[in-house]
Amino acid sequence: MTDELMSALAKTGLFQGLTADQVRTFLTIAGKVAFRKDDIIMEEGKTGDTMYIILEGSVEVVKRLTMKGFDDDSDQKSKVFTKLEAENHSIFGEVALLEESERTATVRAISDCLLYEIRRDAFLRLAESNPELGFKVILNLAKIMGSRLRKADEDVVKLTTVLSLVLKET
Amino acid sequence: MTDELMSALAKTGLFQGLTADQVRTFLTIAGKVAFRKDDIIMEEGKTGDTMYIILEGSVEVVKRLTMKGFDDDSDQKSKVFTKLEAENHSIFGEVALLEESERTATVRAISDCLLYEIRRDAFLRLAESNPELGFKVILNLAKIMGSRLRKADEDVVKLTTVLSLVLKET
Repeated sequence: MTDELMSALAKTGLFQGLTADQVRTFLTIAGKVAFRKDDIIMEEGKTGDTMYIILEGSVEVVKRLTMKGFDDDSDQKSKVFTKLEAENHSIFGEVALLEESERTATVRAISDCLLYEIRRDAFLRLAESNPELGFKVILNLAKIMGSRLRKADEDVVKLTTVLSLVLKET
Repeated sequence: MTDELMSALAKTGLFQGLTADQVRTFLTIAGKVAFRKDDIIMEEGKTGDTMYIILEGSVEVVKRLTMKGFDDDSDQKSKVFTKLEAENHSIFGEVALLEESERTATVRAISDCLLYEIRRDAFLRLAESNPELGFKVILNLAKIMGSRLRKADEDVVKLTTVLSLVLKET
């Protein structure tokens, strides 16, 4: 790993408060994986046990827009909820690092991508042998999830507000 | 603490995988606080540094339903988003355990309540001296946040779907 990448990674939310040695130790459990433009990296509804850090390229996060009882036509609508880019070394799939769970969104490569892939079992073993490092990483992960939760909660409030206004007018 | 309470707490999401000794150690940093019916326990928008575990009583979680640009009348509408009860020893305010942040909802006692209150600085000190315990607690906290995030994401998708249907019909 180049010093440049190392110093960029150390600045990301996931590695806040870690020493350079701790970042290096954490990355010993990360494998590099490459995806081509348009590849599906993870698929909504499938079980996953890996988290990703973007090293190169961009991805989009897509969710299905259908509900039971509403999808009377067979073609499912999807909505792009966000794009993530290498510049910020964004992470995704982080819930899978905590426990086995279904992916809540599909992630697609919108350019050729290079990612770090971290498996749950490797992370839990690392945390067991090095709980200080494990604590720092999981604290950072929880902070990232906290800000995503705050954003999602705001969206729920905004959508509820708009919906109640629209329903009042019709 | 009674054995009964201890064994009930040990079954909650926050304490999964902890030994009885670890639960006891964690609770050394928890103080008991009492609230009367209708007391505001935390207020949306205010900074907080405490998390709560419900021991007795029930609370409701309320959010303001206004957005900049939409609140042309001065009385703000609120919506009760959820109720939490002692039976499950639910937690709330957990994001404040990770970092200083604004409360994203108001929590009001709907009966007389007895709560455990845990302060962030005490938790971080405990985790520093006992990282194995710190890791387990924060892992559980992150799992709880993960399920809240999943729920909020589902709500966003449902509301977006309903809104797009309503807008199509008008």
